Amino acid sequence: MVSLSQPELLARLSAVVGERGVSTARPDRIAYGTDFWPKTQIWKQLGDIDRFPPDCVVWPTSTAQVSAVLALCNEHGVPIVPYGGGSGVCGGTIPIHGGVVLDLKRMRRVREVDTVSLSIEAEAGLNGQHLEDRLNSLGLSLGHFPSSIMCSTLGGWLAARSGGQFSSRYGKIEDMVEHLEVVLADGTVLDTRHRSPGAPDWTQVFVGSEGTLGVITAARLKVHPVPAARALRGLRFRQLKDAMRAMRAVMQAGLRPMVLRLYDPFDSLIALGKEAPAAATEATEPAPGGKLRALAGALATRSRQQLTHAVAPLGKALKRTALISALSAPPVVNRIAGNLPAPCLLIVGFEGEPDFVGAEMAGAMRVLADHGGTDLGAAPGEAWLARRYAVGFKQTKMFELGAFVDTMEVATTWDRLATLHEAVREALTPHAFVMAHFSHAYREGCSIYFTFGAHKGDPQRAERHYERCWEAATDAVLSAGGTLSHHHGVGLMKRGGMVREHGAMLKVGRALKRTLDPRGIMNPGKLWPDEDAAAGRIEADGREGVSL
Amino acid sequence: MVSLSQPELLARLSAVVGERGVSTARPDRIAYGTDFWPKTQIWKQLGDIDRFPPDCVVWPTSTAQVSAVLALCNEHGVPIVPYGGGSGVCGGTIPIHGGVVLDLKRMRRVREVDTVSLSIEAEAGLNGQHLEDRLNSLGLSLGHFPSSIMCSTLGGWLAARSGGQFSSRYGKIEDMVEHLEVVLADGTVLDTRHRSPGAPDWTQVFVGSEGTLGVITAARLKVHPVPAARALRGLRFRQLKDAMRAMRAVMQAGLRPMVLRLYDPFDSLIALGKEAPAAATEATEPAPGGKLRALAGALATRSRQQLTHAVAPLGKALKRTALISALSAPPVVNRIAGNLPAPCLLIVGFEGEPDFVGAEMAGAMRVLADHGGTDLGAAPGEAWLARRYAVGFKQTKMFELGAFVDTMEVATTWDRLATLHEAVREALTPHAFVMAHFSHAYREGCSIYFTFGAHKGDPQRAERHYERCWEAATDAVLSAGGTLSHHHGVGLMKRGGMVREHGAMLKVGRALKRTLDPRGIMNPGKLWPDEDAAAGRIEADGREGVSL
Repeated sequence: MVSLSQPELLARLSAVVGERGVSTARPDRIAYGTDFWPKTQIWKQLGDIDRFPPDCVVWPTSTAQVSAVLALCNEHGVPIVPYGGGSGVCGGTIPIHGGVVLDLKRMRRVREVDTVSLSIEAEAGLNGQHLEDRLNSLGLSLGHFPSSIMCSTLGGWLAARSGGQFSSRYGKIEDMVEHLEVVLADGTVLDTRHRSPGAPDWTQVFVGSEGTLGVITAARLKVHPVPAARALRGLRFRQLKDAMRAMRAVMQAGLRPMVLRLYDPFDSLIALGKEAPAAATEATEPAPGGKLRALAGALATRSRQQLTHAVAPLGKALKRTALISALSAPPVVNRIAGNLPAPCLLIVGFEGEPDFVGAEMAGAMRVLADHGGTDLGAAPGEAWLARRYAVGFKQTKMFELGAFVDTMEVATTWDRLATLHEAVREALTPHAFVMAHFSHAYREGCSIYFTFGAHKGDPQRAERHYERCWEAATDAVLSAGGTLSHHHGVGLMKRGGMVREHGAMLKVGRALKRTLDPRGIMNPGKLWPDEDAAAGRIEADGREGVSL
Repeated sequence: MVSLSQPELLARLSAVVGERGVSTARPDRIAYGTDFWPKTQIWKQLGDIDRFPPDCVVWPTSTAQVSAVLALCNEHGVPIVPYGGGSGVCGGTIPIHGGVVLDLKRMRRVREVDTVSLSIEAEAGLNGQHLEDRLNSLGLSLGHFPSSIMCSTLGGWLAARSGGQFSSRYGKIEDMVEHLEVVLADGTVLDTRHRSPGAPDWTQVFVGSEGTLGVITAARLKVHPVPAARALRGLRFRQLKDAMRAMRAVMQAGLRPMVLRLYDPFDSLIALGKEAPAAATEATEPAPGGKLRALAGALATRSRQQLTHAVAPLGKALKRTALISALSAPPVVNRIAGNLPAPCLLIVGFEGEPDFVGAEMAGAMRVLADHGGTDLGAAPGEAWLARRYAVGFKQTKMFELGAFVDTMEVATTWDRLATLHEAVREALTPHAFVMAHFSHAYREGCSIYFTFGAHKGDPQRAERHYERCWEAATDAVLSAGGTLSHHHGVGLMKRGGMVREHGAMLKVGRALKRTLDPRGIMNPGKLWPDEDAAAGRIEADGREGVSL
């Protein structure tokens, strides 16, 4: 491996992508050294805004340029981290070994729209909402609506197995992809094929590989006609367990709701609070930061209307002591929340041809009523739909106060779902306030989306406490037979858990990693940490002491 | 690699699986040296009943035994060919380098039935119909109904990406599998995971690997409740192209028929002939041998009722000259068949909850009528359903007469489907009589199932002619942008075409093959022929001159 000086590397990169395609500017190196992983927010509170800056950022505009950049980096052992919208929440794009961050966002063409077979081929850097807008203008839709749709890209979705809010009907991104264009470490350009001959299908190996096996540069995806009709309903269930059985019954009857979401009692309180204007004091953002801030207000203002005597004191206490105090005493808040007699909210929706939407909704409402659901009309569903992208981007304020919030999206089969929910709740209860909803239901199982937070006063304690929460939750998930990730990916945060989860299967992954990327340049330190050690990466760059 | 004498190998194998678990008996070595590939029927006519006998046949009863057998064979470089029902039609299990044929049929347990999450775990050697019977006794169904169901196994389905007759609704076997238990060449036992973390999914690499990457010993599969209701209809279309558009419209409207089949004019004539008792002279078997033999009778007896003057002479000629003469002059027969004004038959069926079956069928009939379909009532569909397993096992007679028949199941996206159909018809027309039906329709595309045959008088000429047919058809499929296999797998017959079809992607497959099976013991000579050469397989066993 011929080592290259920094100026030489930049000159060679500029020769490929042009001078405006390379940057070593400090703002770029800071911006591309992080993503939306909450832990990096704690680092910022510690004054650490550039813990892992890349050496440079490169913006290719074509597959040929990606190929040339990779071949160059491979020749000289320079790490490469593919980058899309930077909206990952697990640290998957943090360039912990420096090198080149390869931002794909200038590769954003829709290469082909096939209106006969209903598929498109698009480049990896295309923004999610721009892709959907383009399809809508042709009467088509991808059916993929992650909360991050406005700040994430097609390539990022594929690299991390993204799941959208309508995945019960349309599947996750891995179900939509037909085949991929991938550039390997040595610059080879491949096209995987899907549902083709009676041979192995490689598509699903590159999907979810988080930049460690190659760079996804384009994909062929199934698309759908924009649905002609849509209907949504809300239902109230007295018991969470009845509602979980009802969800399973809907999916296993062969119905295909585009949405089927169930909120646990505490999350329901907030969700129900939001649709009643009187209660929506602070409740315009349903996501982590906003949710927790909405909590005090929602609980307090609704206490006289719907909550029992058991809840009223909690509401008052929260109102009095405010959010931080509540987050400082998670066991107390969790205990009260756990005993809430408040009902659970379930939202169900169908879309497609009007006749079938009507028939499917009627069928689903029969199944849900049989399991104890009470119809709340269209309003809760419509409210959810209207606010489904109102993600809380104001988390920074929480972190500035020495608190943190995070989300954990686990999944398992129906037989283990209640156990998994209980196990994670119990594991987090001593450490953090925790609530959950059940979204992304399928025939075989469902995911659970936990929101948790705590307040520790100073960022050093917050970081340690954050790690403790994840360790406790990870152990609980694996013991309960769940998987650690439904759609947020692995990144840095879950790589240890992933190794435990995959067991002997890791051997195959590492074998392929070693073969396709013998010099370990592709997003080193992620997914297959041992391989990076074997490739001498950690020793070679002198950063082996880095603390994550 | 320590070489082992034959008696030493047998002694070591017997120590693992017991004496009754190993055979070197000549009848076993003959039986396990072939499968249902039509070319081997020609070999038999040449007096060649044991061209590629294995050295021995081994019947393991557990995953631990499979692991021990593989570790032993790997240590000594002995080829291993996993074997299920032996119903493959492409030569995939023929042990062209000798060694051990590993028959999995004694591994036939259903390990677990999960009636909550609707999945089962079963061993690879379980017979397909036995699996379905067992599920039915529990009110469940796999939804997988290949024509070979009575003589094929779960492991064979997975190894070759089997597709059943209801794949439009339930998917192919690769859509049903959740994860696999696989034993690698060195004896390592793996469990792949599906839809689990945001990481690569290896399941689809072992599915379709035809025994070249490891032995599939068990699988977790999705299952369904046995449908409460079922409805079938037949429709007549004047034009094939209208019917193809109608099929696409049904699938893209989001409807999920369990069956949607379209016969080209000639195949329709035979299919229609079969449901009218008066015309069903010889027509109880719809598959290759039976179909072609049914041809003369069906054409002749229906000539006065439905066929035009153009067809009547053909019918008479066929009746007079009989089948062999017809197959001796394929261009003439094809030309007449190509000008048939006979209508095309389409069969559509739904199953599931009664309400939804009714709604979906009503929706489909509206779509089909909009595209020119005329309702023929339930009879054609019911007739198809009743005879759907009546595969012609009497092909041997055809081969004894110096003729051959074969089938070719190609697939492509809807935009290329008509072109692919025409291209293959044109390519085969000079060489063989050819007809087709369109089955296995999906949102994105459809497969075409060609039946073709010819008569050359003696087996040597028949073998050369058989190869010519496949070469012509392969070129046509690849030029038209189709794939060479929808559900029959690759085997020996299509491995050359597979190499052409996969292009650069083969590099990844070969890299993994080399890593997981460095000594090249796993079904050598299939899927990755170059790797076997690299492993010294072809040189080492002195059989490099074998003619396939």
